Amino acid sequence: MTEAKREYGVVGLGRMGGNLARQAMDKGMRVVGFTRHSAPEDMVEAGLVEIHTLAEFKEQLAPPRVVFLYIPAGPVVDTLLDDLAAELEGGDILVDGGNSYWGDSIRRHRRLSERGIQFVDLGTSGGVDGARNGACFMAGGEPEAMARVEPMLLDLAIDDGYVHAGPPGAGHFTKLVHNGIEFGMLQAIGEGVDLLTHYRDDLDIAEVLRCWRHGSVVRSWLIDLLEEAYRSNGVKDIPSYVDDTGEVNWLVDDALHMEVPVPVISQAVMQLFASRDDEKNWARAIAMMRHGFGGHAYGHSDAVVQERRTGRIGGFPAS
Amino acid sequence: MTEAKREYGVVGLGRMGGNLARQAMDKGMRVVGFTRHSAPEDMVEAGLVEIHTLAEFKEQLAPPRVVFLYIPAGPVVDTLLDDLAAELEGGDILVDGGNSYWGDSIRRHRRLSERGIQFVDLGTSGGVDGARNGACFMAGGEPEAMARVEPMLLDLAIDDGYVHAGPPGAGHFTKLVHNGIEFGMLQAIGEGVDLLTHYRDDLDIAEVLRCWRHGSVVRSWLIDLLEEAYRSNGVKDIPSYVDDTGEVNWLVDDALHMEVPVPVISQAVMQLFASRDDEKNWARAIAMMRHGFGGHAYGHSDAVVQERRTGRIGGFPAS
Repeated sequence: MTEAKREYGVVGLGRMGGNLARQAMDKGMRVVGFTRHSAPEDMVEAGLVEIHTLAEFKEQLAPPRVVFLYIPAGPVVDTLLDDLAAELEGGDILVDGGNSYWGDSIRRHRRLSERGIQFVDLGTSGGVDGARNGACFMAGGEPEAMARVEPMLLDLAIDDGYVHAGPPGAGHFTKLVHNGIEFGMLQAIGEGVDLLTHYRDDLDIAEVLRCWRHGSVVRSWLIDLLEEAYRSNGVKDIPSYVDDTGEVNWLVDDALHMEVPVPVISQAVMQLFASRDDEKNWARAIAMMRHGFGGHAYGHSDAVVQERRTGRIGGFPAS
Repeated sequence: MTEAKREYGVVGLGRMGGNLARQAMDKGMRVVGFTRHSAPEDMVEAGLVEIHTLAEFKEQLAPPRVVFLYIPAGPVVDTLLDDLAAELEGGDILVDGGNSYWGDSIRRHRRLSERGIQFVDLGTSGGVDGARNGACFMAGGEPEAMARVEPMLLDLAIDDGYVHAGPPGAGHFTKLVHNGIEFGMLQAIGEGVDLLTHYRDDLDIAEVLRCWRHGSVVRSWLIDLLEEAYRSNGVKDIPSYVDDTGEVNWLVDDALHMEVPVPVISQAVMQLFASRDDEKNWARAIAMMRHGFGGHAYGHSDAVVQERRTGRIGGFPAS
């Protein structure tokens, strides 16, 4: 067997797919790219072979061909996989580098294998910077497909940032669990910062974070990023609203099916919802019932809060 | 003013106090140590000046003297601070490097300052290895005390792993928040690993963790430690019981007083309690009520679980 070519095709040249392609071309790989839009000029200058129909992958790549998908999760992945399968040959490999649901990846692997097309689900972490300079990959796939794809993934991963997690589905599942852990960590750090901001004295939060980055138990990339953001942004200008792409909801649903208790990961998801909730109808309902059973006034009452905070002797220092 | 001597006294030569002393002596500092037990032999060989009464601190150290406490939090800290204050002179500085409650540290600072003794609360993170090779310090104290202590702390901290967080109390508060974040991160990671172990295929968890250490969003010291433990231990031999020293309970209590919502940090504390709960009386109570209102059988029922898992079409893959 001749050595497999260091080349791949890719559909989607956005933040992840585009920056991985830049990294690949820097490292001497040949990249054939298809995008709904025009490819960015710097990529064409760097050697990207831009194609305008999916059929061109077959002529531009040597078999067994490898084509990555870096597009958002959803039904369009199925459409695209079907369209690509129709244009490729038996033995060619489709790699979904997006955040598809692992259950979908298992189904897609089965459906494609009936047509002789191999499928790899590839969780990709590390953000835009990772894609550009060395990503973290969790792959699910059968040995034959991995043997073809793995050398390129090892080239594109940061040192030691690659795992063949298991059979089809295992890559996206492992990535999904990673994202669930990420949500829990984000929420824990967020709550900690909130406590710091409520301390009796003003604390320099960027300085505390800077300290925690070095030698503490909580040192982590997320603390690194938060310190940088505290130094570069006006915190008060950051909207207190968190968006997400919804994948961790799938993980909570998985946990319900697996009957695995994940209270902190679930709560972290609920807190994202709470960040989007300007109405707080639940609080209105509670206030209405308290008004009903205890005649408690609506809204804020300084007197009650003050009494509660100072009524107990000992413990939390009142002043 | 002549340059302050690079020397300090310490009460407590255990895991934290002892290893900090070893590091200090490696770096040419003079350390005068008091312990209930005999000082470890290697420390005496490294130059530790071992004393057997608190009164000897006064003769062994030059004013303004600095004496660290590295002992467990509790009333014994008050006793020891009083005993030390009686043996020291005005202007001398006591530094509590343990995990005392920050409210206690504020009270202790006030009480000692009435006797002319300065007080610094010093949160110390990074574990035993940090103490030995470079710790992470969060200090609370007044400028005069900090000016005397800070140069030594900078010597004993890992690069950039020191912050003067604020006035007395701020060091221990910042450390407490750090510990709360730590608990949330631990729980999130624990839940993620639990999900990995429940996946349909066997996953090599050490390999997944190894991958996450490099380039992923969740990369962190805790993930580093967990991979190492997975490689060195038989996981099944680890008791599924988590102990702790109870400080994060104080943080949850603080949050109640500050009225700051910390659902994930609170839940992480509750999950530690759950790890210690072999009785699960709450589950017994639920089972009894379900039995009462619905006639549901006690214990495990394969039939019901099977039906629930396969009754829905779509979503989580049943096989």
